Amino acid sequence: MASQDKAGMDGMEAIESTQSRGSDLKVASPKTVRYSDFLLRLLALALTLVAVIVLAVAKETKTVHVTVAPNLPPLNIPATAKWQNMSALVYFMVTNAIACAYATLSLVTNRGGKCGMALTLIVLDLVMVALLFSGNGAAGAVGVLGLRGNSHARWNKVCNNFGVYCLRILASIGLSLLGSLVFFLLVVLSVWNLHKKSP
Amino acid sequence: MASQDKAGMDGMEAIESTQSRGSDLKVASPKTVRYSDFLLRLLALALTLVAVIVLAVAKETKTVHVTVAPNLPPLNIPATAKWQNMSALVYFMVTNAIACAYATLSLVTNRGGKCGMALTLIVLDLVMVALLFSGNGAAGAVGVLGLRGNSHARWNKVCNNFGVYCLRILASIGLSLLGSLVFFLLVVLSVWNLHKKSP
Repeated sequence: MASQDKAGMDGMEAIESTQSRGSDLKVASPKTVRYSDFLLRLLALALTLVAVIVLAVAKETKTVHVTVAPNLPPLNIPATAKWQNMSALVYFMVTNAIACAYATLSLVTNRGGKCGMALTLIVLDLVMVALLFSGNGAAGAVGVLGLRGNSHARWNKVCNNFGVYCLRILASIGLSLLGSLVFFLLVVLSVWNLHKKSP
Repeated sequence: MASQDKAGMDGMEAIESTQSRGSDLKVASPKTVRYSDFLLRLLALALTLVAVIVLAVAKETKTVHVTVAPNLPPLNIPATAKWQNMSALVYFMVTNAIACAYATLSLVTNRGGKCGMALTLIVLDLVMVALLFSGNGAAGAVGVLGLRGNSHARWNKVCNNFGVYCLRILASIGLSLLGSLVFFLLVVLSVWNLHKKSP
């Protein structure tokens, strides 16, 4: 394996130089990497922010027909569906808010492109992947229950009464899922670059 | 930044040599890295396998008192709680089975320590992190619903009747959570090593 003497070269210049690794991989210029990283973080910020906003406005009030007994007429009770009523949706909201705040902070702190920050950012991006995917899983699980119900547990479906509420939650989950995929890509991008830079 | 001429050195020996990076980071020997990686994969395999087994045996049959109407005596109906009845638990089972199968495969394929496999394995480890955390989130969400119920959606708690079933699901979620943390550590370990190896 041939290697180059990089004595006296600046760290960022060294990245730009092609390193012979047998597989002829070319290292992307730091500018391209930083630009992609910036765009992805901006996208993650936008997606998680919109997911939070869409969930926050997911509120619907309707008159629900409740059957108390088979021989009695159903009662009409006004009911409000909101995300605060379901612990899984509260957790989903918290994970997206944390990811959104982190995306904003990382955009600010990563602009200098300091080498020491790189590892911390990769690990924190990874934490966001785990956090967002667990939130998506939790929200998805109650979303399916709201849509279909569960006859075994005798949990009735909710979405037949609260269609708009369910649609907004679905949209929020979709946005959050895209956001988590962006964080996933950020980790892959960082690993890809470290892999190319390694001897 | 001082640098060493590593021409003629073998790739793995080059990793062993200390690279002056200003911060005096010492690169772990490839043996140590491979040993840690092997142990972590073995641990991930064991944890996800036991999580799958514990969930598979989570089945309980009990006589449930169902109140049809307030003026009628409650009916005694035999009911069986099993993971197949809840789509979130089916998803949880599938994610753990995939992670378990992948951990086994990666143990076999990673023994040669081929450089070309490294990036693929990191990305696949990352996929496992995302997959397992979403499964944990889904199972956790229905677990909380089973334990507490939800008065707003009129979903009654299940765990007051099926205590053993709920305990086993809780144990399975705990094991899977540990398994996903091991996959998380595997990604961090790989990133840490790539970071140290990079110039």
